[in-house]
Amino acid sequence: MKALVYHGPGRSAWQDTPDPEIRDAADAIVRVEAASICGTDLHILKGDVPDVPPGTVLGHEAVGEVVETGSAVRGVRPGDRVLVSCISACGSCRFCREAAYGQCTGGGGWILGHTVDGTQAEYVRVPFADMSLHPLPESVDSREAVLLADIFPTAYEVGVLAGRVRPGDTVAVVGCGPVGLAAIATAQLFSPSRIVAVDVAPTRLEAAKRLGADAIATAGEAEQLVADLTGGLGADVAIEAVGLPAAFELCARMVRPGGHLANVGVHGSPAALHLEDLWSRNLTLRTGLVDTSSTPTLLRMLIDGTLPASSLVTHTFELGRTAEAYDVFGRAADTGALKVVLLGEPPHDTLSVRTGEPV
Amino acid sequence: MKALVYHGPGRSAWQDTPDPEIRDAADAIVRVEAASICGTDLHILKGDVPDVPPGTVLGHEAVGEVVETGSAVRGVRPGDRVLVSCISACGSCRFCREAAYGQCTGGGGWILGHTVDGTQAEYVRVPFADMSLHPLPESVDSREAVLLADIFPTAYEVGVLAGRVRPGDTVAVVGCGPVGLAAIATAQLFSPSRIVAVDVAPTRLEAAKRLGADAIATAGEAEQLVADLTGGLGADVAIEAVGLPAAFELCARMVRPGGHLANVGVHGSPAALHLEDLWSRNLTLRTGLVDTSSTPTLLRMLIDGTLPASSLVTHTFELGRTAEAYDVFGRAADTGALKVVLLGEPPHDTLSVRTGEPV
Repeated sequence: MKALVYHGPGRSAWQDTPDPEIRDAADAIVRVEAASICGTDLHILKGDVPDVPPGTVLGHEAVGEVVETGSAVRGVRPGDRVLVSCISACGSCRFCREAAYGQCTGGGGWILGHTVDGTQAEYVRVPFADMSLHPLPESVDSREAVLLADIFPTAYEVGVLAGRVRPGDTVAVVGCGPVGLAAIATAQLFSPSRIVAVDVAPTRLEAAKRLGADAIATAGEAEQLVADLTGGLGADVAIEAVGLPAAFELCARMVRPGGHLANVGVHGSPAALHLEDLWSRNLTLRTGLVDTSSTPTLLRMLIDGTLPASSLVTHTFELGRTAEAYDVFGRAADTGALKVVLLGEPPHDTLSVRTGEPV
Repeated sequence: MKALVYHGPGRSAWQDTPDPEIRDAADAIVRVEAASICGTDLHILKGDVPDVPPGTVLGHEAVGEVVETGSAVRGVRPGDRVLVSCISACGSCRFCREAAYGQCTGGGGWILGHTVDGTQAEYVRVPFADMSLHPLPESVDSREAVLLADIFPTAYEVGVLAGRVRPGDTVAVVGCGPVGLAAIATAQLFSPSRIVAVDVAPTRLEAAKRLGADAIATAGEAEQLVADLTGGLGADVAIEAVGLPAAFELCARMVRPGGHLANVGVHGSPAALHLEDLWSRNLTLRTGLVDTSSTPTLLRMLIDGTLPASSLVTHTFELGRTAEAYDVFGRAADTGALKVVLLGEPPHDTLSVRTGEPV
């Protein structure tokens, strides 16, 4: 098959690579119908994630079709259309038993495109298939569904739920990339009074407005705007969706006494925590990798049409055009890219080829 | 009356000062039977808390007897023996209505010995008396009860409850001063598997053992000990009870994925938050000023004899001997001081003098 293979910092290629095979009874092989690019993939390509071995196929977000299953797989079978979650879960370690799948110590967690071959490929082996795949009805567009592989559960669980957004709240979302926008979309499920979107890029602030932000601000304006909107008190919830110390520290300055700061951003360096101000302010700070425990709920909402996912996809490319897709995604400030999706062949053509069965 | 008056950094005196008077209908005047010294008082004396105006009477912890009440006070009356809480609460602002009394915006919060005259005096005016005083039975020793003015509710609410200590947990308590020791004592109410006490002073580690710590360690040993005890995973809960960046950062390194870090220490400078490690570890970090919402519960436990308070008091002095008391408390590493209590006249003698009624 063909896949996007990482060859060390700055180097990758869409190239021939061995077809994935069932290695464990709990594995499934999925033919990729749609795979999306995550900001984390850019970090890997830059060399910021040194535990990714050269030779690894990138990507941890996909929609596809099961083409083969190991003998222990019960929840899906060949021909099923599925969402490939960014988190694989053994299902039985101490963390999985508490639904903290992102912290799985039984061989799962974030492994796809990280410690095992990922989804930006024609086929992908998915370990722990019963816990890591979610059946999808044919009615769902793969370009929307793929957003539930990572960004929607991440924004919802690590941002909105961990930040404990409540009715009447003032919520500040710092960073309006795909995850920040998904946080703006899902924060509204809890009826906050207002959502203040903060970013440096006008195109992203416009997208934030379309997704329901009530006010927008640049980083320099945000603190004053939030103070003005809250009688000087501060935001009930601040969600960091950037991954830079300055963004985190802005969130810490904006949150009110007794408020919540939910860090969603992937960070590469320490931030200053101003405990001399914060020690007495009853701050609750949360960090986290997504567990994807909310994915079934979010999928039901997507199917019902109550999750505004489609507007986040700005660009699609054929699966093999990874160089162009990464270029457009990597220059998001110029291209206006939000989520970039790589599209494989539609499912049924290949299904009949692979399985020899009529559709 | 006589009181300990702050005169700016490094200067204070036990001196004559005007008797406090009822200024508001919700005030009460309390004759001080016992007042304790808090680490925060040392910070004030050093000049670390610049919002304390020179001329302020120090102290925010006391047991005493009500001698006069304003016309709106309903919960206590002259002659009642009371605990004076370190937190005063208006009872009706948005924070008080959520039991976040420490964040009171109606004129309360931590005001005694901070923005209004405090308890290290013969008499103290207590604003919002109904919310800020707790009736005490005669059976309770004032040297024990005074520990519930601040350190026990602080350790319990900001450490144990905010840190969400649960049965089976490994709890690391960094800092075994009075508040850390009170955290060790109250953490046991939730049946953790083990409590690891961390300090630099052998006398404090011995005290930690007496109060129920299962293991002790110096700061240099703590990380390895916790790793050894938890199969490399880390502590479920880390409680910072020092107020220094190094102690906070040690807690952040010791806590397991999905664990809780409760900061109880009063900090004067920022700490480094290593988000490059912590972003994905599902950390919950809490800071907070005590609300004293648990004080009635802790008082019931003290009266029942189920709260090990007495062993925390190492030194008592007559109320006027503040210079000696502060010296002993300030040199705790040499003197072995934990909690130092200033004792006024026993209650009933003065009660009959003040009110003219026989006891």
